[in-house]
Parts: sequence; structure tokens; C-alpha cells
Amino acid sequence: MQTTGKKAEILKKIEWADFHSFSMRHIGPPEKEQKEMLNALDLNSLDELIVQTVPASIRIDSPLVVKSIPSEAAVLRELKKVAEKNRVMRSLIGLGFHDTLVPPVIQRNILENPGWYTQYTPYQAEIAQGRLEAILNFQTLVTDLTGLPVANASLLDEATACAEAMAMSRAIHPESDRNVFAISSGLHPQNIEVIRTRAEPLGIEVELFDDSTFQPTRRHFACLFQYPDTSGRVDSDLPQKIARAKGEGLMVTVAADPLALLLLKSPGALGADIAVGSMQRFGVPMGFGGPSAAYMSCRDEFKRSLPGRIVGLSKDARGKPAIRLALQTREQHIRREKATSNICTSQVLLAVMSSMYAVYHGPEGLLRIAKRIHGGAVLLSRAIRNAGHALLSETFFDTVTFDAGSRAGSIQKQGLDQGFNFRKEGNRITIALDEVVDAQEIEQLVRILTDGKETLASLGSEALIPEIPEGLVRDDRVLTHPVFNSYHSEHEMLRYMSKLEKKDLSLNFSMIPLGSCTMKLNATVEMIPVTWPEFGRLHPAAPASQTEGYLELFRDLESMLAEVTGFDAVSLQPNAGSQGEYTGLLAIRAYHESRGDSHRNVCLIPKSAHGTNPASAAMAGFKVVVVECDSEGNVDLADLKRLAEQNAPQLAALMVTYPSTHGVFEENIREICEVIHTRGGQVYMDGANMNAQIGVCKPGHFGPDVCHLNLHKTFCIPHGGGGPGMGPIAVKSQLAPFLPGHSLLRYSGASTGGSRALGAVSAAPWGSASILPISWVYMKLMGGEGLRRATEVAILNANYMAKRLESHFPVLYRGRSGRVAHECILDLRPLKAETGVEVEDVAKRLMDYGFHAPTISFPVAGTLMIEPTESESKAEMDRFIDAMIAIRAEIETIRAGKADRKNNLLKNAPHTAEMVTSTEWMFPYSREEAAYPLPAVRAKKFWPSVARIDNVYGDRNLVCSCAPIESYSS
Amino acid sequence: MQTTGKKAEILKKIEWADFHSFSMRHIGPPEKEQKEMLNALDLNSLDELIVQTVPASIRIDSPLVVKSIPSEAAVLRELKKVAEKNRVMRSLIGLGFHDTLVPPVIQRNILENPGWYTQYTPYQAEIAQGRLEAILNFQTLVTDLTGLPVANASLLDEATACAEAMAMSRAIHPESDRNVFAISSGLHPQNIEVIRTRAEPLGIEVELFDDSTFQPTRRHFACLFQYPDTSGRVDSDLPQKIARAKGEGLMVTVAADPLALLLLKSPGALGADIAVGSMQRFGVPMGFGGPSAAYMSCRDEFKRSLPGRIVGLSKDARGKPAIRLALQTREQHIRREKATSNICTSQVLLAVMSSMYAVYHGPEGLLRIAKRIHGGAVLLSRAIRNAGHALLSETFFDTVTFDAGSRAGSIQKQGLDQGFNFRKEGNRITIALDEVVDAQEIEQLVRILTDGKETLASLGSEALIPEIPEGLVRDDRVLTHPVFNSYHSEHEMLRYMSKLEKKDLSLNFSMIPLGSCTMKLNATVEMIPVTWPEFGRLHPAAPASQTEGYLELFRDLESMLAEVTGFDAVSLQPNAGSQGEYTGLLAIRAYHESRGDSHRNVCLIPKSAHGTNPASAAMAGFKVVVVECDSEGNVDLADLKRLAEQNAPQLAALMVTYPSTHGVFEENIREICEVIHTRGGQVYMDGANMNAQIGVCKPGHFGPDVCHLNLHKTFCIPHGGGGPGMGPIAVKSQLAPFLPGHSLLRYSGASTGGSRALGAVSAAPWGSASILPISWVYMKLMGGEGLRRATEVAILNANYMAKRLESHFPVLYRGRSGRVAHECILDLRPLKAETGVEVEDVAKRLMDYGFHAPTISFPVAGTLMIEPTESESKAEMDRFIDAMIAIRAEIETIRAGKADRKNNLLKNAPHTAEMVTSTEWMFPYSREEAAYPLPAVRAKKFWPSVARIDNVYGDRNLVCSCAPIESYSS
Repeated sequence: MQTTGKKAEILKKIEWADFHSFSMRHIGPPEKEQKEMLNALDLNSLDELIVQTVPASIRIDSPLVVKSIPSEAAVLRELKKVAEKNRVMRSLIGLGFHDTLVPPVIQRNILENPGWYTQYTPYQAEIAQGRLEAILNFQTLVTDLTGLPVANASLLDEATACAEAMAMSRAIHPESDRNVFAISSGLHPQNIEVIRTRAEPLGIEVELFDDSTFQPTRRHFACLFQYPDTSGRVDSDLPQKIARAKGEGLMVTVAADPLALLLLKSPGALGADIAVGSMQRFGVPMGFGGPSAAYMSCRDEFKRSLPGRIVGLSKDARGKPAIRLALQTREQHIRREKATSNICTSQVLLAVMSSMYAVYHGPEGLLRIAKRIHGGAVLLSRAIRNAGHALLSETFFDTVTFDAGSRAGSIQKQGLDQGFNFRKEGNRITIALDEVVDAQEIEQLVRILTDGKETLASLGSEALIPEIPEGLVRDDRVLTHPVFNSYHSEHEMLRYMSKLEKKDLSLNFSMIPLGSCTMKLNATVEMIPVTWPEFGRLHPAAPASQTEGYLELFRDLESMLAEVTGFDAVSLQPNAGSQGEYTGLLAIRAYHESRGDSHRNVCLIPKSAHGTNPASAAMAGFKVVVVECDSEGNVDLADLKRLAEQNAPQLAALMVTYPSTHGVFEENIREICEVIHTRGGQVYMDGANMNAQIGVCKPGHFGPDVCHLNLHKTFCIPHGGGGPGMGPIAVKSQLAPFLPGHSLLRYSGASTGGSRALGAVSAAPWGSASILPISWVYMKLMGGEGLRRATEVAILNANYMAKRLESHFPVLYRGRSGRVAHECILDLRPLKAETGVEVEDVAKRLMDYGFHAPTISFPVAGTLMIEPTESESKAEMDRFIDAMIAIRAEIETIRAGKADRKNNLLKNAPHTAEMVTSTEWMFPYSREEAAYPLPAVRAKKFWPSVARIDNVYGDRNLVCSCAPIESYSS
Repeated sequence: MQTTGKKAEILKKIEWADFHSFSMRHIGPPEKEQKEMLNALDLNSLDELIVQTVPASIRIDSPLVVKSIPSEAAVLRELKKVAEKNRVMRSLIGLGFHDTLVPPVIQRNILENPGWYTQYTPYQAEIAQGRLEAILNFQTLVTDLTGLPVANASLLDEATACAEAMAMSRAIHPESDRNVFAISSGLHPQNIEVIRTRAEPLGIEVELFDDSTFQPTRRHFACLFQYPDTSGRVDSDLPQKIARAKGEGLMVTVAADPLALLLLKSPGALGADIAVGSMQRFGVPMGFGGPSAAYMSCRDEFKRSLPGRIVGLSKDARGKPAIRLALQTREQHIRREKATSNICTSQVLLAVMSSMYAVYHGPEGLLRIAKRIHGGAVLLSRAIRNAGHALLSETFFDTVTFDAGSRAGSIQKQGLDQGFNFRKEGNRITIALDEVVDAQEIEQLVRILTDGKETLASLGSEALIPEIPEGLVRDDRVLTHPVFNSYHSEHEMLRYMSKLEKKDLSLNFSMIPLGSCTMKLNATVEMIPVTWPEFGRLHPAAPASQTEGYLELFRDLESMLAEVTGFDAVSLQPNAGSQGEYTGLLAIRAYHESRGDSHRNVCLIPKSAHGTNPASAAMAGFKVVVVECDSEGNVDLADLKRLAEQNAPQLAALMVTYPSTHGVFEENIREICEVIHTRGGQVYMDGANMNAQIGVCKPGHFGPDVCHLNLHKTFCIPHGGGGPGMGPIAVKSQLAPFLPGHSLLRYSGASTGGSRALGAVSAAPWGSASILPISWVYMKLMGGEGLRRATEVAILNANYMAKRLESHFPVLYRGRSGRVAHECILDLRPLKAETGVEVEDVAKRLMDYGFHAPTISFPVAGTLMIEPTESESKAEMDRFIDAMIAIRAEIETIRAGKADRKNNLLKNAPHTAEMVTSTEWMFPYSREEAAYPLPAVRAKKFWPSVARIDNVYGDRNLVCSCAPIESYSS
């Protein structure tokens, strides 16, 4: 600072806003650093950079029309006003969504803690042992409760988990004469709907059954039950039904409420092959539908067919137990269009919360919660009977349904007056209890149900008889592992979470330069509204009159997203990028069908595409045809034309990533799109790289007809260690009629989706609604100008890194003027040939320097793809660059024969504190070279908690639930 | 968990509350562990333990009447209702309290983060380098802004800082003919009041002056100015006045607004010797008066007279720069009654927040904030003039005062209607702007002031002329240190805070068994309300009608505290334990005076008392007479009787700690009190050890007339790394009339204090009001039963530790039945004699084991005092005990001659990662013995960031502001 010392110069004009402008907090390099980087690139301005980088044919000059609220305080004030248009009622609606008491110690120290929410997916397991342990706990929780030995690390929601169970069953039973999937009419309506959406393009016939129509035959490949069902009923005949299905060779899936499983026999014990369900009520707010973690478990023999991620135990280079993602070869980016699921991610942050909820309560606490809820439901059932109404089922866990006859409307109204939402269908009323319920609320409910005639006292709450079928009472012990029996005081819990957190490198330590994954700042101010009760405690089927704030926020967000992308309409339903792709392709499919072009089923996909693209295309019923790329990584236009022409009559779509997965703005994108359009196809743009486009070009203006937006990349939703994400799609007007609708809208009266809406693709109408305020706050704070500036600086940062690194590692692809877009690819293949050093070795060695590796071997094997994002300062990038240069020098010593090809700093990386402090030192370099290779590392050291993990060992010896980690130590 | 498998046994009775009962989360050991510990102590029940521990003569059997709300959700619901009775207005009242924008990244990651707020005072500097660096930043900020080279680590509030400046000046100028302290009538009223309260017992005459009466003479030892003054005026004659005062040899203190100092010449540049002020507006919520950090700085020659803590640079055993508390020998626990201040602590957490606010904004950002506020004030001054009103001063920074004549009432009312609080005294209106103000608010204010005749546009906000005296315009550069110029993006800021946090051991890592300091759980649910705006954004002089929620909470908290202590009335004003002591003694003094016993001025204090006791007594004008202790550490009753008798006519008070500082319930406490009472004295009980009493005895029933309560010990307010604290006092009815009042009450219309109230002792009527909800929530959640159980388990835990450790280290003091109270003292003196090992060596070695040391050498040199508190589980205590036993074995090797007396594991502790990983290993033990002495340490290792710190070096070479830490590295 320099005050002038001259009075007259102190004030000229008041700058009301500049000093608390958010964009200078979000964008890492201040103007001075931007200038330095421009200088390094021989550029005079950001504009000049953009002119060189973004093709003139698509560049826009007019500013984005996104009105800015630049002050953090003001944006929260504005949003609070919106939030207050939501009314927080006690929603006893059920349908798989229940209010829950989030333990404050978990809310503050996980959900609101950047140490957890800014983590990336745990591919670099040596610096992710904390969340991997938490997910292993989650899997253990699921396997214990469901009685099935293998669980995955979570799925997006219960409805998609049901659909995944269908696809998994079909993959296990591919016989062409078994093409029917039988599902119980007792499923939650959104489960039925999502199953139907997913079944149709796959040619699977879905058959709805009830008690009288359940007839498993050899036409069926699988069946699915809800346990308890959507009315609350616990079917005493379920074991017999399952046995009959098994007798006919069907795969049996049970969608089970995990809290009910504290009292009810497990799906595994009933003979099920697969169990799915929602872990939301284990301490994750309803959030108007999401995000929360769904679970999936199965018999051991099917574990290699289980979709999604699985975390498993292995060992490290020192023989110590270590956890990592198991069986990664199952994933869709390997199997591509042969994958039976396009699921890329899981709901890590929410799965962690649910597992911690179980750790904190322990088996006894969970059992008490379950008993209390069931006790409340038993009391309600008495009140209902005493009031002369007929219960739909005499056996239930937490939910009672009854025919209220002429009193139905009055009961609903009394409930509303007293702050309760019930579910009402005709004269049928459903009341679903949750752990929030207390004696006072039960008393209120009893009075409402009996018109004030009964009270808790009159019903006799002292001696309750459970209303569970005798044969379904659970009799095995669960959650006996020490982790569920040690941390029940808040101090112990806090320390356990903190111990795990410290093992993981997250954005609060250093940059995570993941190419394509856009690990930018997740600002605190964006995160604050997520835990406001007005956003957290809303049920997705609550009456629209109670959710006006959310609906306003959705409209506003949709219109901002349409503005920045240049599209006409947006759907916020897809709750992951993969879901967005799938939904976009379904919209294209429906569009063609609406025009009588049902035969259009060919989807062109460039070779360089992310594996999710072909997987999604296959799921949408398309036939994938692969387009070649040229040596520069661009779509081979000649091949594209050839294939488009060859497949013209059947041409449905092209999927293209822009800027390309190679990190380049392809010059001929307009022509590429025209090639497709002139042959009747539609263009799907993968929006993973939207961070390079906002404000400088609009995909809606240069060809694509639909794209998805990874709100967890470009729009600041944190990665949460591997989820939640949000993948809304934006479409041109011709596709708008096909945006998905939702079966829950019939309860709420709200509306979404197009005039000829697709069926639901997610469990809730607006996907993971409660994290949408993050993107809303981000866009409002940045405004049109700030959003463009962010893009410019993201491109500047990437070009600066490319420039500084290019003399050490060849930069693989560049655009016309020698610029990269928002990321750059370093080619390590020549070095590998010379020295034996693999990209993985560099990734592991970066840990010793305190950095998370960039993306490895995508889109090209043997390369590193670096995306710094606009949020990284020059100082942080320089530290990373210094580390890369130092590693390059280490590689050089190998090349020069001064270091051994197998026993060197890279091959032995990462080096743990235990390794470097051990008396025995058997490496041909010093301890300091191992642990403190640069002076900056001394100032700030991150210790990987395990040494290099042996992936092959873990896959050969799959262990996917807890074994005491420490007990494995030698 | 074991479900029975039998339906009938699932439910008997619904247990509505038990599963989420808070006390099982607060109390570490579950019943099973309690049983195990009771067994180890040969006890059958907690009752039996209490019977053996607490003297029958004082034990109570009737339960405490504190109604419990056992669910965390319910208590927050209840408190929210109370909070909503507060109205959050825009308080432009000034008086040293200003609204501020707390940057969300600081709020979440410091104020709401247990990694920061659960830290203890940084006595063990090797595991506290993070907050020590943050405080060094604070001191640098203060020295830069005030232009004085030495600053302390903060004081309690501005008003007490003014009083401390008076006492410091007096200590520098002890001449008996200079007995007058001249203070400007422009001081904030609470500053004047606290100065007067503090001056009176010391026999200092306070003289109020204004421009016409300022006549410094050799009768004065010092003078004090407010800059700008309470009306907002910036006095252009201030430099001349200061020069005149200096000419007469006066010490000059300037109480300055730190934000104004961005534009105004520094106090140092004006010639001041001392500067004080409040850093509240640097990002700390007003909180209805506190807590926030006050600052104090001075000329270099006076640094050894500076009260409070000072943080300074030194070096560690490896020669690396390291930070620690400097000049500790100045402290009152060494100088005892010769100390001129009883200040024990500082406002660390708030000082850290303010320093981070400056780090985040940097000098340019701060300057922009200051300019913007000043610009707004200039606009207001134009509006006032245009409306025909006379400004009290034509020069100002952020505050304008004017005579509104007959329009005063209407202006105030219009303000209130539009959500603004102004200050009104007669027809005089004062409006103080803050950084929250924006153009829209200025527009509103302009309209109010001009009755709608003027607008921003009509006033011409484009060309503003500052209204600062030309001679007072600042012309030097400030905050040039890199730390204030590097972390302006949120990512950089987040990583900087996170980097510091990771250097510090806090309760989220392991237990901190500080004897007397009661480092128990600070539950998340207790912390949540602290950052609610209804508690954070209230001005302490806001109208009582806007603060009804707070007032209700205070009444409720006072009545709960009275109930658990057995006293009749409570004052919540003292904002630290030392303040409580002082206030209690003032009440005793006033009581004697009211009875014509002004001659009673002898205060008996046992030798074992904490050093604050004699310091407080001296400040209250008492003569301290020391009472001997017997070999068991108890008050020597014979000596007490002798001294009481000998001083009977002058006997004013006895100060006694109960249970004693030796950790024992003295049997004869009733008799001790009677000895004093029968001779006309009053008994002051130091409440530091109240954690051993709640629910099992009530000091109000067995003798004491007044005690203070450390809400930051027994009642769960976190230590914040060395503040904030709260030290309310509870008194018997005869002392109630003398509880302190407050000058701010005349603005708010609220009431507190007794009928013959003492003057204020703190800057705000209810001290650090915004942290009082923490204790309220704690007491409500525990209820009477839970509070007693907490005490029982605290005593159980201490006895368990004593039992397990006694065969390794002698336990120094015990009660009648061989039990200790809530803490125990281990005697290491015999070992020292044999082996040369000091308690400090054990303390440092504990760091290698991942633990913070217990209290060392208090109350007995050469001992360790351990207080586990009720919140530690048996597992955590066992880990600590194992560490102590292992260290004992290490000492044994020295005793046996197997290890060197000077070069051993203890003397070289702590061992940093850099030491243990260095190629050169020159110690006579293994690296593993140094770093991983027990298997448990491998599972969870904490690395001290520096080696043993050289305290002497730092005190000899005092550096109390930032030098780039890294630049010191060799």
C-alpha cells in the first residue's frame, strides 16, 4: 500500500464494490501475475490470448447477460430471501426420503469442511487413505445390513440403483428368451419410472406385478421387490416369493430401507442376489431429493458384475495394508460401449457421511433409533384402528397407509395446519415416520388421526407389540467391527474423522491439476447455503406451494445456464455427468422417433472420447461407430464425412467433446456439426471442458444440439472426494419437448420437463437439488464479466504451464496458433522408452513433492494432462512446475545411467515417513532426496500414509469390507 | 448389537430420548468403561467414589434443578426461538463497535473449525507454531498501523486496554507527586468508566479534559486521547497536544481506531508512547460487545512493561527460527502481588481472525475499505450541512455528529423504521459508518438526513474531498511484509490457514490434559449458535427492545449458574477469569466500605494460590498476606488462624481455591471459611476447579461469599488457543448490590448490575456476550443429572489415571480416603535428582508420542498436573498413560546409566520429521525410538514443526513482529 500523503489524492470517487468483488478471490492470479504470465507468453492482453486460442468462427464478443451480485454478503442475503420462500415442514411422506438428524459433529467436520469436500476421486490412493477407509466402512455397513458379502462404494440414488440392478441382472442372464424384468407394484413410483426409462432403449420388457399376479417364469431374467414397500407394508410372504423366483432361475433384487434392516431379516438371508437402497436417512439431509448415497450389494459370485466403484484392501510396497479402488478394469472407460453401465462416479461425500453416522451411533444406537420409529408407527396404527380406519397392511416398519374414507381431506388439512406433510392418494393416506419424530409429534399425529379422541396415554405406549411378521424378525448380529463400536463420544468421533482427514490431500493443501476434472475453487460462500434447513429439509414430493424458493432458484439457474451456453432449455434432473450424457442421447432418440425416424440408431464417437460416451450411447440404444482422430488429436474430418455418409440413413448423433479431450479448440467444429446436421443427425457435445468456453463462445451457437454441464467442474460444486456431481443438460429448442419429467411431480404439483417429456432418469425431479445453490451463488457472484474473465485466466494458466514445461516435457497437442485451451498434455512416452519411467511413477513421485498428480494416461496412454483452472495463482503453479522440472532432472539421472532403472526415486515413490525414518536405509539416494527434494517442500510437507500400493494383489485377493487396518501391520 | 430374533422382545417401551441424549456424547467413557475404571479402583459405583472424595460436610444429595433438553436438535430449536427475539438492525452507533464483513473463508475455517478453536494457550510452542505465526502477524499488523515497534498478542477489550495503559504508565512513572491521569472527554464512555473503576483502588486521580481544559503538568504521570474521538472528530491539534504533554514528561497513550489508521498518521508518528484500541472491526462480529481482540503497542524502551502476552521469534535446537511466548518472566504468576496487571491471557482466536482479515485484504484492500467508508461519511456530512445542521467537527474518519435540533427525534425514528440504529444524546445525533455500508444504504441515510431532499446524485459522489486534517494524512507505507501481500485469492488464503492449522496440536488430535485448565469437549452443537447473526451482529448499545433474546438468555444462564453454585446473584460482565477475581474483590471492597469498614484491606492468600490471585488483590487495593500450606498441600489451618487473628481489624478477605490447586477436596473448608467470617472478612473462592464440584457440592452453601466461574473451563467455552474466556462471578446476597453496572446501558436502556453497582470492569455490559450461548447450550443439554454425572466421571477419570500412574510416578497429594479430585499431581523431582530429567523434558518428549503435556511446575515446581476431564474416554487415557509409562522407562535407562544424562531421548525431544529423516544421525538411539516409540504412534503421528526452542535466546534478542520465517532457514 502506498497512501499518498496528500489529502486530495485520497479520495476521488468512492469505489463501492470493487474491494469485495468476489471474482478477485475466485481467480487465483491477481492482475500483476496475469501480466507476468502474459509477458512470458509474449502476449499483451488476455484478449490477444483468446483471439489466438479460440477460433474466430465461434468466438463471441458480446458480454454474457448474467447480472452480478459481487459482494459475498449481498449474495447470501439475496439467496436467503429466495430460501425463505421454501417452507420447512415435517414431511412424513416417505417414498424413500426421510428427515434425519445430522449429527452436528459430522455436519461441521465433514459436510462443511473443505478438508473433505474438496477432495478428488481417490485414484491416487496413497494420499487418499482417509476417505478410502470411510468408504470401506460404508461398504461394511451395507454388507452387514443387507446380508450380502460385496457392496460397492455407492450409487447415485435408489432409483438408478434399481435400474443398475436390472442391467446387472441382464448382463448375468443374457439369454434372449429371458427378456422380462418383473417389478413389484409396491416399488416407489420413481423407481418404477426410472427402471422403465432405462429398460426401453435396451429392449427389456418391464412387467409390474402385485401379490396376485406374481408369476415368475423362465421368460423373466430377474425381479425386484421393495422391502418394506412404498405403502409401508412388510410382506410376510416375501421369503416364499423370493424362493419361487429363484426356483425359476431369476436374479432377485430387493430394494431395502437400511434402517428397517436393523429389525428386519436381511435381503441376503431371504435369498436375494442383489440389494439396493438409499442411505439418505443415515444422516444426510433430504435436500429436496438429493444428493445422498444409494447402496448396492450382491452375492460373491456376482461381484465382477457389480457396477460403480468398489473400494478394496490391498497392500503397499512395504507389505502394509492399504486401501484403493478395486477392479478398476471393470469400468466403462475400459469397456466403453461394451459396458453395461455408464456410471463414472459414486456419492463419496454422502457415503462418508452415512458411514460416519453409523460409526457414531453404533449398532446399539441404530437399533434404538429403529425401535423408536417402529414404536411410533405401532402407536399410529392403533390410533388408525381406533378411529375405525382400515390399515392397508398390518405389518410395517415405519410407514402406515390406511383408507381414511371421507376424512382423508380433513386429516391432510389438519396435518398441514400443524406443520405435517402426509402422502395422500385418493382417500388413502400414508404417514412415514423418521428419527426426528418425538413423543410430542406422535401425540399430535394421534390426535389428528383420531379427531382428538385418543392420546399417547390412552393408547398405552408402555407395552407395545411390534407389527413385524414373526418370520422376518432379524436375528443376526451386525456391525460388530470395532470401527462401529469405538467412537460414540464426540471427542472420539471428532478425532477419528480428523485422523482420516489428515491422510488425504485435498485442495486446502495444494493444487490438484486434474485434466478435464477442473478442480477449481469451491468457495466457502458457495457452500454456506447447502446446509441451510430451507434447502436441506425439503422433501422432493412436498407441495409446490412449500418449495417456491427452490423453484425460483431452478428457473434462475436454468436461464443463466441457457445464457452462457447459448441453448434454449435446460433440465436439472441428471445428477451426474454420465446421467447428463445419457439423458441428452435419450432426448435425441425421442426426437428422431417423434419424426418417424426410429431407425436412426448410429452414434458416431471420436476415438479420443471419454469412455462414458460410448457407454451412454449403448445404454441409449445406439450403435456406436468410432471416428478416427488425426495426429493432432482432432477429429479426422475425412473419416467423419465417410462414416456419416456411410451411415446417413441411420445417423442419429455425433458425440463430440469441445474443446477436445486433447485440450484444443478444434478449428473446424462448425463444419463437423454441419456434416452431421446435413445428414439428419443431431450433435451431442460433452460439456466436460466447458470451463474453456464460458463467455468466449457458446456451443448453442456453433452447432451442438445438446450438451451436458458438469456443475461439479465448471460451476464450482466440489468433487466431494468422488461425488456428488450434477450433470444438467442444455438443449436447442427442437429437443426441449423431450426433457425428462418425473413421477414425483404428481404429488408436489410442481412441473418440470418438456411437453413430450421423457420418463425420469433420476430419483428426484431436480436431481441433487440441494447443491444447486452452489452454482447459483457462483454465477451470481461472478456475473457475465467475471465468468468470462475466469475462462480467460483458465486458458492463460494452462498456456503458462505449457510454456514453462515445454522444454522439459513435450506438449502433445496445440491449436492453430500454438496455444492450448484450458489444459495441456505432456508426453512422457519418449522418456519411458529411454528410462523405463512410467507416468504412474511421476504421479507417485509428485506426492513426495506435496502434489496430487494430473490426469494420467487419458486421453492418451503414457501422458499427463494438466488443468490448473483459473483459481490457481502463479505462485502455486510455479511450485508445481518446479516439482515437475525437478522430477525431470531425476529422470535424467536415470537416462544418464547415474541412477538405477528399477531402484530409483520415482520407482520407489511415494516415500512414507515410516520409510524415511527407518534405521535401515537401503535406497541408492539420500533420505533428504526422498522426502524433501526441494526447499519449498520443507516449508510444507505432506506425508503419504502408505507406500506404493499393489493393485494386482488387491484384485486377486478381493476384500471389500473392513478388516482392522492396524491389525494388518507387521 | 444383538437383536433377539424374537418379535415380542423388540419393543417394550419406546425410549424417546435416550439414543440422542447429549450427555453420552459429552462424557467420554460409556458405562462399560466407567465400570472397568471403578473396578480398577476397587469401587462399586460412582456414588461410592464421590463419598470417598468429597467431604461429607459439604456434599449435597439433592439433584440440581436444571431442566434438561437432551436432544441437540431440540436445544438448537429452543435457542433459535430465543435468538429470534433479537432484532438484527444496522447499528451505526459507533462507540468502538462496528459491523464488519467476516470473510466466509475465515469464518468457516477458523472460527467454526475445532482445529483452531480447541487449541490451548501456546505454552508448548513446538506444537503451536501455526497460531504463534498468526499472532506474530497480528503483532506486526498492530506495530505497522500504530507506528510503534512493539505490540502484545492482544488484550481483552479496548476499555481494559486503556486501564492497562494507565497502569503501565504509572509503573513507568511511579513518582508520588505525579498521581494524576488525564483523559480526554472524547474517550468512549466505557473507556472512561473502566479507567475510573481501575484507578480508584490504586489511588490514582483521574482528570477529564477537553480542548479548553487540557493542561498537562508535572502533577500528571500520563494522558490518554481517543483518535478519532467518540464523536468522530479528528483533532487537528492532536500533534500539538501530544507535544505539550511530552514536554511535561507525561506518558502519552492514544486509543486509535485501527481502520482509521489506514488514512491517519500513526500514533507513533504523532509522538505517542503507547497505543491501544479494538481490532473488532477487522473481521470479528460485534457479538453484542465481545469477544474481540484489543491491541496494545508501545515504544521499544517500554517493552518490558507491556502487559499481557508477547509472542516473539527465537530459534530451535537446530538453529531454525521458531516462535514462542516471549518475556514470560514478566507475567503475574511470577511477580504475583508485585504485578501491575493480572492479565493471564489474550484473545487469541479473535486476534488470529483479525490478523487473517488483514492477510486476506492486504494493505490495498484495507485502504480501499477505509477510503470507501470515509467517502460515505463525507457524503453524509454534505447531506447534514445541506439540511442546515451543524457538524460537531468538520474533520472525521467514519463518524459524524451533528446537532439535529428539533429534528433529532424524527431522524432517529426514520432511521429505526428503515432498520438503522443511530446514537442520540439529546438533540445530538451520531452516525458511524462501517464496511458493510453500500451505496444503497448511503442513499437511504442521505434521504433520512435531508428529509428526502437530497440523493447520492444530487450530492455529487464523483468528486469527494476528504475531511481529514492535512497534517494528519498518513504518508508511510504499511503492511509491506509478504504475509500481507500473498494470500488474496481464496485458495491461497485457505491453504495458508490450513498450513498453520496443521502445525498445531488441538483437541481434534488427542487429549490435552492440562491441570486446572479443564480442556474438555467443546461440542459442535454448542458452537453453532455463536455464528448466528442474531447473536453476532448486535451492537452492545442497541436498544433493549432489539436485544430481548440476549437478555432472556442472560437471565436464564445467570439463574442456572446460581443454582449450580448455590449463590444468590451472578454478573456476566467479567470477560476473563482474572477479571472475575478482580471484580469479586472489588465487590468485597465495596461491601466493607458500605459498612464503614474502609480500613479492611488485608487479603489472605495461601501460598499455593495461582499468581493471578495476589495480582488481582493488589489491583483491588488490598494488602496481600500469604498463608502457609501444610505438607499435604492444604491450607495450614493454624497459620490461617494466626494470621486472621493478627490482622483481624483489617481483615478484608481470604482467597481460596477449591478443590485446592493441589487437586484435593480439603476437608476443613467450612472451618477455613468460618475463621474468616468470624473476624469480619469475606471469602473469595477461585472457581478454576469448579469442574470437580458441579452437582456434588455448592460453594454458596459451605462458606465462600463470592466466586468466579471460568466458563471456558467448566462450561465448555473453548480455549481458542489462549482466549476468549469468560469469568462471571457469583455472589451471596450481601454482595449482590455491588455487582458492576455499565455506562453503555444508558444508550440501550437495558439493565444489569446491583443497586449500588460498581463501575464497569469490561468494555461491554455482558462481557463476551456472543460466546455465552455455548455455556447455555451445554447446561441445557446436560441438565442437572448430566452435570452431576460429568463431575463424577471427571473425578473418576482423574483417579483412574492416578491409580495407573502411581507405581511409575509418585502422586503428590491425596484427600482423606486416598482419592484425588478432578486432577492429580505427579512428582518428578526425585527423578530429576537421580537422572537430570526435568519436567520440561517429559513435556517435550510427550510431543513425540503425539500428546500435549499436562500443566508443568504448577502449583509445585518439578511436577506435572494432569486433568483428564470427563470428556476423555478410557481408550484415550490409556494411550496417554502408556506414553507416560514408556517415558518412565526411558528415564530408567538414564538412571541405570544405559543412556547419557545430556544426550538422550528426553533432552533431545521433540524430534521433528526433518531431524529424523536427516542422513546424518548423531543420536545414541534409533530413529524409530525417537519418532515412533510405541506402536500406537505409528497409527497416528503428530510431527512437531520445530525442535526444542531456545527461550533464552529469544528473550535476549527480542523480535516481536514478522520476519519471513522461511528466510531464517539455514
